[in-house]
Amino acid sequence: MENVKNYIDQHKERFLRELFNLIRIPSISAVKENKEVMYRAASCVKDVLISSGASQAKVMDTDGWPVVYGEKIINPYLPTVLIYGHYDVQPPEPYEQWISHPFKPVIRDNKIFGRGADDDKGQLFMQIKAFEFLVKENKLPCNIKFLVEGEEEISSPSLKKFCIENKKMLSADVILVSDTPMLSLAEPTITTGLRGIAYFELTITGPDRDLHSGHYGGAVNNPANVLATVIASLKDNDGAVLIPEFYDDVMQLSPEERELLNQVSFNEDQFAKNIGIRKLHVEKGYTALESVGIRPSLDVNGIWGGYTGQGAKTILPAKAAAKISMRLVPNQTPEKMKAIFSAYLQKIIPDNVTYHLTPLHGGNPYVILYDTKEIKAAAAAIEKVFGKKPLPVRSGGSIPVVADFEEVLGIKTVLMGFGLHTDAIHSPNENFPLENFYKGIESLAWFYHFYTI
Amino acid sequence: MENVKNYIDQHKERFLRELFNLIRIPSISAVKENKEVMYRAASCVKDVLISSGASQAKVMDTDGWPVVYGEKIINPYLPTVLIYGHYDVQPPEPYEQWISHPFKPVIRDNKIFGRGADDDKGQLFMQIKAFEFLVKENKLPCNIKFLVEGEEEISSPSLKKFCIENKKMLSADVILVSDTPMLSLAEPTITTGLRGIAYFELTITGPDRDLHSGHYGGAVNNPANVLATVIASLKDNDGAVLIPEFYDDVMQLSPEERELLNQVSFNEDQFAKNIGIRKLHVEKGYTALESVGIRPSLDVNGIWGGYTGQGAKTILPAKAAAKISMRLVPNQTPEKMKAIFSAYLQKIIPDNVTYHLTPLHGGNPYVILYDTKEIKAAAAAIEKVFGKKPLPVRSGGSIPVVADFEEVLGIKTVLMGFGLHTDAIHSPNENFPLENFYKGIESLAWFYHFYTI
Repeated sequence: MENVKNYIDQHKERFLRELFNLIRIPSISAVKENKEVMYRAASCVKDVLISSGASQAKVMDTDGWPVVYGEKIINPYLPTVLIYGHYDVQPPEPYEQWISHPFKPVIRDNKIFGRGADDDKGQLFMQIKAFEFLVKENKLPCNIKFLVEGEEEISSPSLKKFCIENKKMLSADVILVSDTPMLSLAEPTITTGLRGIAYFELTITGPDRDLHSGHYGGAVNNPANVLATVIASLKDNDGAVLIPEFYDDVMQLSPEERELLNQVSFNEDQFAKNIGIRKLHVEKGYTALESVGIRPSLDVNGIWGGYTGQGAKTILPAKAAAKISMRLVPNQTPEKMKAIFSAYLQKIIPDNVTYHLTPLHGGNPYVILYDTKEIKAAAAAIEKVFGKKPLPVRSGGSIPVVADFEEVLGIKTVLMGFGLHTDAIHSPNENFPLENFYKGIESLAWFYHFYTI
Repeated sequence: MENVKNYIDQHKERFLRELFNLIRIPSISAVKENKEVMYRAASCVKDVLISSGASQAKVMDTDGWPVVYGEKIINPYLPTVLIYGHYDVQPPEPYEQWISHPFKPVIRDNKIFGRGADDDKGQLFMQIKAFEFLVKENKLPCNIKFLVEGEEEISSPSLKKFCIENKKMLSADVILVSDTPMLSLAEPTITTGLRGIAYFELTITGPDRDLHSGHYGGAVNNPANVLATVIASLKDNDGAVLIPEFYDDVMQLSPEERELLNQVSFNEDQFAKNIGIRKLHVEKGYTALESVGIRPSLDVNGIWGGYTGQGAKTILPAKAAAKISMRLVPNQTPEKMKAIFSAYLQKIIPDNVTYHLTPLHGGNPYVILYDTKEIKAAAAAIEKVFGKKPLPVRSGGSIPVVADFEEVLGIKTVLMGFGLHTDAIHSPNENFPLENFYKGIESLAWFYHFYTI
C-alpha cells in the first residue's frame, strides 16, 4: 500500500490528461438542449472506467441524462463499495469573470482551473485513479461498483427511480462519495451531514405589457416592487426566516454535539475576507459553522424583471421573477417547505398582481454518525495521509441523492471529500489544487485498506 | 383653412411613406454605439423639413446626439412658433412580444405599428405635415421654427446647453409640442402639466464572486435579498413613498383645481382592464388621474442579479442591481431627490454589503395655466376638429426639456398631443391610430389660425 504515492507520481501526467478531456466537455445538466454533450461526457467516463480497470462499464438511459455504471467484482463473498459521483456541472455564467475558459482546463498556481475541476469531475477522478492503483497493483481488497450520474447539479430527478429499478445491480455494503470540501490541508475534516434543498421560481405578473412608467406610475402595482416586498418579507434583518412553521421540524443538537462541531478551528474574519466581505451575517445565537451546517437558510439565487440594458428605460415592467432556494436540515423536507411557502405567499401577495410558484428541485437532508465502522475507516485513511485525525463537519451543501440511497438502497454513505472552500465551485474560476487531487487519491486508496482489515 | 382636410386626403399615402422611412431607422438613443443610426435619423428629418417647405434646415452637433433645426421665416414682425419634437425612440425590448418588427412599420386595424409610431416620430410628423399644408397652400400666418432632438428618451442631457448656446436662433413666442396623449377621440384633452423625473441605478455588492448557496447560505448577507429589502423599504403597501422628505416640496392643489382635473370622464375599472390588471393601486385619498398627474411616484424599472437562465443554479449572487425612478411634481427637483434617496440608503443598507447609486437622468416638472392665449388657441383648434372643447389634464409622463425651455429661453410650451393611452408607447407593439394622425394634422393647422387671429 505504501507504493500508492509512487504510483501517483509516475502516472500523474496521464491522470491530468484524462481529467482534462472530461472537463473539456461542457456537460451542464441545467441546459435542456445538451443531449449530445451529456452522452459524450457519460461515454468519456465509461471509457476511463474501463481503461482504469473496470471489468465492465456501460452508459445507461434514465428518464433524464444518462447514468454510467461500472464494476470490478473480484469475489462475491467480499464486501462491496459503491462509488457515487457525477459528471454534470453547474452553468459557468458569468463567462466574463473567468480568467481562463471554463471548459479549457489549465494548471495555474499548482491548481487545476475549469468548471468541474473540483465539483465533481476532479473529485470523481480521484476515486477512479485510487481504484486504478488498486487494480493495476493487484491490491484490490473488495468489490467495487461505480455509479456516475449526470443530474446532480439539477437535484438528481431521475436517479431515485433508477436506483429502485436497479437495486440488485447497485447492492453494496457502503457508498463512498467524494463531492464535499475539507476545512484545509492542515486540518482535514469528514463530512457527516448534508443540508437538503428546496428550490423555487417565483413569478409575479401585473399588467399584460410593460407600461410607460410616467403615464401609469402611481396607479398600477409594480410587479418588481411587489416581488421585492415579498422577498423582503421572507427574512428579518438578522437573517432569520419569517415564513410561519419554517423552523418547526428543525432538529436541535445537544450542547455536546454542537461543541464537537465547533472544534474545528474556524476563523470567521478570515472566512469573510476570503470571499471579499467585511463581515459575516449569521443567525443570532449560532456560530458561522452552525449557520451553514445545522441551521436552514433561504437565499435569492437570481432575480430579474423589466429593463436591464444600459441607460434608462422608463417602463413599469409587466412581470418580475426570482429563483429562491432554502437549504434544509434534518428533519425538514422540500414537500413541507413548498406547502408553507405557498401558504405564506397566498397570504402576503396583494390581489392586484398574479403569481406563480414553481418548485425547480428538492432533496432531503442527511446525517451519518461519526462512530461507525465506515467513518472510522475514512478517518484512519485521512489520518494516514494527512498526519492528523479529521474532525466531523456538517456541510451546508446538498447531495440529495445521499438521502435517497439510504431510503431506497438501505446503504449508508461516507463523504470523503477533498475540496477546499477556496475552490470556487459553482462560481467563476472553479479550481482544484493539485496537492488535494493527489492526496485525495492516496487517502481513497487507504480507505479500502482500513475498511477491509 | 377648411381645405386642410382635402389636402390631407390627397397626400396621406405620401405622408405615411415618409413617416415609415423615419420609423425604419432604429434611432434608440439609449444605445451608446448608435452614432451612425442617430445621424441617419437626423438627416432624414432634415430632408423631410426641406421637402415640406422649410427654407432652411440643418443637422447640428451637440455634446450628445445631433439636433435638427429648420425654419420658415416669412416676416420678422409676425409671431414665431417654435415646434419641438424628437426623432429618438425607446429601446424596443422585449422583441419577442412584438407582433410585427418594431422597425418595420405596418398598418394593421387602421393603426400604424412600430417603435416611434406615436412617440414621437408619428406626432412630430403631424407637426411637419400641418406646416407643409400651410406653406404649400400659402396659408402660413406666422414664422415657424423646428427644433428636433435625439435625446428625449434619455432625458435630453445635451439640449439645455444647446439652447443656451443658440438662444437667438431659437427665439420664439411660443413652443408647440406634440408628444403627449389625449384621453380619447371622443373626449379630447390638453396637457397642462408634466411630471419631472429622477432615474437611478442602484447596485448592491456582497462577496467578490458568486458563492455556492449551500456552503455559504446562512452566513453571508445576500445582495439580492438586501436589494429586495431596500426596495421594499421605499414604499408602503398602499403605494406611499417612505423616503423621508419625499413629499415635502409637493405642490398641493386647491379643491377647485382638483375638481377641474377630475372632470374628464375616466373609468378606473376600464383603465385597469385595458392594461390587463384586476384593479388599480393608487395612493390613498387620490383618484387614479391625480395619482399619475399631480402626485409623485416611485417605480422599479428593471431589476437583475444572480442566475437568471433556465433551471436551478445554486448560487448566492455577488451582486444585484435595480433601475429605480421617481416621477416628480411641482416643486420637486431631481437634485433634492438624489440627496434624500442617498441619505435614506446610507441609513438602511447594512454595512456587510456595499452599494453604489448612479443618477441616470433627471428633469423638472412643468405646469402651464389653462387661461392663457396659447392654450386658448390650442383648445379652439381642437374644438374645431373634434367638435368638443378639450379638458385640461396633468400628464404623468416627463418631457424634461419643457421645463428647461421656460428657464433658458423664457418661452411657454403648449402641449398639443394626439396619442392615446392604448398606443403602447415605450412598450411592445407601439401604435398610432390613423384617425389620430390625420385629426392631429388638421388640429395643428387650425392652431396657427386661432393663435394669430
